[in-house]
Amino acid sequence: MAYIDVDKNVPGIRSLVLFRPETGKPLYELAQVLLRGPSPLSPAERELIAAYVSHRNECGFCRDSHAAAARCLYGEERGIVDELLSGKDLSSLSSKMQALLELAGKVQVAGHHVMPADISAVRAAGANDQDIHDTVLIAATFSLFNRYVDGLGSLTPTDPAEYVAMGERLSKHGYVPPKNN
Amino acid sequence: MAYIDVDKNVPGIRSLVLFRPETGKPLYELAQVLLRGPSPLSPAERELIAAYVSHRNECGFCRDSHAAAARCLYGEERGIVDELLSGKDLSSLSSKMQALLELAGKVQVAGHHVMPADISAVRAAGANDQDIHDTVLIAATFSLFNRYVDGLGSLTPTDPAEYVAMGERLSKHGYVPPKNN
Repeated sequence: MAYIDVDKNVPGIRSLVLFRPETGKPLYELAQVLLRGPSPLSPAERELIAAYVSHRNECGFCRDSHAAAARCLYGEERGIVDELLSGKDLSSLSSKMQALLELAGKVQVAGHHVMPADISAVRAAGANDQDIHDTVLIAATFSLFNRYVDGLGSLTPTDPAEYVAMGERLSKHGYVPPKNN
Repeated sequence: MAYIDVDKNVPGIRSLVLFRPETGKPLYELAQVLLRGPSPLSPAERELIAAYVSHRNECGFCRDSHAAAARCLYGEERGIVDELLSGKDLSSLSSKMQALLELAGKVQVAGHHVMPADISAVRAAGANDQDIHDTVLIAATFSLFNRYVDGLGSLTPTDPAEYVAMGERLSKHGYVPPKNN
């Protein structure tokens, strides 16, 4: 049960956004522009970074919902998602994505953990300023979402089918804030 | 020098928002509604939580700018800010604020570090659902801002006078995104 009086039937961040729509609006707008708006990174790649950071932050709700969205968006290449989250060999990812995930992992620990050498490494792998910006901001944004969802003890479904449905919704419709009935 | 090609004369998050206004817009809207909109916590108390989380995340730019804003907003009680950031006795803060800062510190580490006993402690000190929500979201939001600012190596001024000016601007005008000329 969540730590505050939110709708008991609504999971994760959606319950918190219904509790406080004023802050929910910019949070959903941020997710939509950052994960679906113009970027050199595909929506699939951006959802993969989101799932990876959530996995490192041990936030089951965000990890499983964004992993499900990434699987939908990767289509036939969906095996990449489980390879990453189970810590397997990442040779099926481009060297640029491998380097950007390494950068996201540094940001997940702390902003000041990123060193000039980390940036040189992602540039050597082909990343440009926009790739770097968006990767750092996605990692930072999920450092927010993971803390928001777990810090308020929001409902984390245990049925895998619920995440499949969330992944399909996120991949088709993007980030649309829930509305109170 | 920042890790990406931002305006070299603009410090901190403002340089990043000028680089990527699409994501800057919801980030500033979030800061404005969360730190200045309706809440049982005063703007001074919310800026204090922001400065405290930034201090724990070792983000000098966010710590010093939000500490400066908190000093302006606390007015004659401004000594509270330096007492908190220097780790001194917090008896000049209400027991509710002491408990909420403890909660913010847990969120800063990780969302799942918050336990039911932490929530019982803040409720015993007089916090309600909105206090708890806003404290957790402020701590989560500065876990984003701190990582964004430092993860991209943005300019952190060393002249204390610059932070005094930022604090005055933030206390008077709130969060208004910068615009490209």
